[in-house]
Amino acid sequence: MKVRKSASVEMAADPTLDFWFDFASTYSYPACMRIEALASEAGVAIRYRPFLLAPTFKAQGWDTSPFNIYESKGRYMWRDLERLCAEMAMPFRKPAEFPQNGLLPARVALAGEGEAWRGAFCRSVFQAQFGDGRRIDDPAVIGDILTTIGAPARSMLDLAQSDPIKIKLRTQTEEAGSLGIFGAPSFVTGDGELFWGNDRLESAIAWANRSHAGT
Amino acid sequence: MKVRKSASVEMAADPTLDFWFDFASTYSYPACMRIEALASEAGVAIRYRPFLLAPTFKAQGWDTSPFNIYESKGRYMWRDLERLCAEMAMPFRKPAEFPQNGLLPARVALAGEGEAWRGAFCRSVFQAQFGDGRRIDDPAVIGDILTTIGAPARSMLDLAQSDPIKIKLRTQTEEAGSLGIFGAPSFVTGDGELFWGNDRLESAIAWANRSHAGT
Repeated sequence: MKVRKSASVEMAADPTLDFWFDFASTYSYPACMRIEALASEAGVAIRYRPFLLAPTFKAQGWDTSPFNIYESKGRYMWRDLERLCAEMAMPFRKPAEFPQNGLLPARVALAGEGEAWRGAFCRSVFQAQFGDGRRIDDPAVIGDILTTIGAPARSMLDLAQSDPIKIKLRTQTEEAGSLGIFGAPSFVTGDGELFWGNDRLESAIAWANRSHAGT
Repeated sequence: MKVRKSASVEMAADPTLDFWFDFASTYSYPACMRIEALASEAGVAIRYRPFLLAPTFKAQGWDTSPFNIYESKGRYMWRDLERLCAEMAMPFRKPAEFPQNGLLPARVALAGEGEAWRGAFCRSVFQAQFGDGRRIDDPAVIGDILTTIGAPARSMLDLAQSDPIKIKLRTQTEEAGSLGIFGAPSFVTGDGELFWGNDRLESAIAWANRSHAGT
């Protein structure tokens, strides 16, 4: 329904897809690296929705990632991620510690909402962690990434630790739970359809487009 | 390496892909409905490897399907399966009971190894369960399916209850565990690569073909 684009009503905007992810989540890495290119090709706007998986896991009785709890599943995941990265010609290096704490980069991503560098920041954090084996809970690493992508590191790190941003991340994490999100990456279309997993990114984008055309 | 086909050494046979599934597994339904067409198009031979997930689940501390234990995940799965079926123009009806007991059809599938009707039998069982909401632990239903696809129902049901077949299913289930299989559907290539989930079927087939060409 491209014709609607000229009408300046809210429904006429590009279809959107909410991208829910935790910076500690392994499969969020390939999803984050792919999503902008795929979405832009399809004419879908991406909304970055960082959240924390830990409360979700805790609600399911887990005190760490299920990939640590269920050994076969964990072994499979690392091999699968390695294969996916090779296929996408993306660097891969298993971090010494897993899962890392994604709190700091999640807050920075929220602090950078609306900034042109936000997508680049998210991709750089994932690549630092799963491509270079760096720690993402270290302000020096995050500051380094911000500087490299041309963002104001000092002010962003400060803003990230402010109360409004802390509250925002908490609210957003609660929202993920109320949407029925139980893992990452997850994608939610404008009409409320949930898709879970890097494998379902294409389906989510197609749904966002189709359902929007049908409005 | 199609040129190798003419040489009568074992390596020259078509690449194979082992298809590990439990008849009670929801995502094994779309995988089973798709696998023959995709594999034949790619020149890959499929080996049906029915097994039972229950011992795997038990080893992980679960007394039922994780889709029943983790509510959000279960709710998502049913909606996702419904969408997948609609996309593939496959019937879908949520069975009254889940998971069902896949023991009987698994034994029949083993009893029918080498028979031309085996693929059709597997597809019919999945469709009866997730398309028509029928019970698959009922010998009358399984007999009905066998008759419909032109297989000798009585003798197959008898063979399915024989000791060699019972032992074979037990052995095969243990083999699944030793291969690191933790869910269904799973796919294992000739060179031992494991792929998990209906979403990864295409990747598994591509890997089977590539690794075979490289031998």
